[in-house]
Amino acid sequence: MKVLLLVGTGLIGGSFALAARASGLFDRIVGIDSNPDALDTARALGIVDGGGQSFEPTAVCIATPVSRIAECVADAALRYPGTPIFDVGSVKATVVDVLRASGRVPSDFVPCHPIAGSETVGASAARADLFQGRSVIITPVDETDPGAVAKVESWWRQVGAAVTLADPHSHDRIVAATSHLPHLVAFALMELLHEFDDANLSAYIGDGFRDLSRIAASDPTIWSDILQENREAVLRLADQLAARLTIDEDKAALKHRVASARGMRVGLDEGPDYS
Amino acid sequence: MKVLLLVGTGLIGGSFALAARASGLFDRIVGIDSNPDALDTARALGIVDGGGQSFEPTAVCIATPVSRIAECVADAALRYPGTPIFDVGSVKATVVDVLRASGRVPSDFVPCHPIAGSETVGASAARADLFQGRSVIITPVDETDPGAVAKVESWWRQVGAAVTLADPHSHDRIVAATSHLPHLVAFALMELLHEFDDANLSAYIGDGFRDLSRIAASDPTIWSDILQENREAVLRLADQLAARLTIDEDKAALKHRVASARGMRVGLDEGPDYS
Repeated sequence: MKVLLLVGTGLIGGSFALAARASGLFDRIVGIDSNPDALDTARALGIVDGGGQSFEPTAVCIATPVSRIAECVADAALRYPGTPIFDVGSVKATVVDVLRASGRVPSDFVPCHPIAGSETVGASAARADLFQGRSVIITPVDETDPGAVAKVESWWRQVGAAVTLADPHSHDRIVAATSHLPHLVAFALMELLHEFDDANLSAYIGDGFRDLSRIAASDPTIWSDILQENREAVLRLADQLAARLTIDEDKAALKHRVASARGMRVGLDEGPDYS
Repeated sequence: MKVLLLVGTGLIGGSFALAARASGLFDRIVGIDSNPDALDTARALGIVDGGGQSFEPTAVCIATPVSRIAECVADAALRYPGTPIFDVGSVKATVVDVLRASGRVPSDFVPCHPIAGSETVGASAARADLFQGRSVIITPVDETDPGAVAKVESWWRQVGAAVTLADPHSHDRIVAATSHLPHLVAFALMELLHEFDDANLSAYIGDGFRDLSRIAASDPTIWSDILQENREAVLRLADQLAARLTIDEDKAALKHRVASARGMRVGLDEGPDYS
């Protein structure tokens, strides 16, 4: 019997469990969550199975907030030697750094970051198709067993994702630009808006602001963790962003800048398709 | 015969023409555009009627980039005295300031800003339902004739919009936060991303970044104009935003900040519905 041990039964972990079950990767899914309500929800939704029987996991998925990943990985490596352990966190270098500082990076640990999610929160928002056509970044380090990487990679592919390999530090620098700083900006824009004391404020909110600020509704526990763990890269980029919040006095120069940004954004939609 | 003179046959002007025709507000729509190709497109799409016959407009809609609105309003007021003239620009105070400095603000001029649009460009993206359930801000000044306001207000309502009255300076300060600074941020985030020299960059782009950066694909002519016309308010807010791009070291404080931003964003979706 193939058993997945899911540590953290929220949106991402719950979605992996649903997707893995639908793909026949595991016969049983055992859930653990520090929040008993979250675990109850995941059980009620059939995302994880009931407890009771003993088990020997085939894989361990760590889907906790990033500040808890290192300790969960170390714990799983002690309990289940030889079993592939992977996480789904948005920050990769600090986890490896903490493990290395505390003694060793388990060879069975495969750091993963699925580029998928939602501003909705918890297992009730989990979806079996969350990773379909999405990208997963895997950031193995020197200590990582290639056999474990191959297994974890194959699971992601079987739930519909495309896998890209990267080194953890490059990953963290890039996601600071594509995800972490954008979230911080969205939070800060909401704060600015809140300072306007105007009864008709909502009349000024259009689709552009709604789309841009959607990620401001993300999970506070998850996101305060991510920002702190990738603090240095995010703050360095924030300075670079602030320096670019200028409006050229020269019309042609400003129009050129906007046209260039437009070209890059249009190019995003013409990029590779992972589906 | 009721005739709408549409000056500027792009996305917003074209959409008003389509919506007004569908609502039976005008029998004929005459288009003017400094770009002959844009006018040809609008004609080919049936957004404006063929030229030739003389006409006496019932209304003039100025849907040019904001830097050209004041001169178009002054011109229309000279040619068609007693005819309501309204614009659809995103910046309101500078237009009135320019008109006042040049002699007078025509009493028939009703400054309008529909909070609707798209990152698509030109008449081919025009839609008859663009204003359905949307908000339009009207910013009359001392010189404005209340009778003209009443007519323009009624046209917006008949194409499905909800009208809110505001003073031009308040309008410009608020849209700096809800629209102009967000656009500048989206342009700047695209620029930052462009600096990453990584072949796998697209693997890191998720829905959050796509949603947030969608407005970076907006029309460069329109948006370089808007940013310059509302420069002072946007740059003041940009400084305030930059000052908020911090990451609290205290976990509880940061989590509280994110939770508060999340609460505000969730509140936006629970705001008044204009449809």
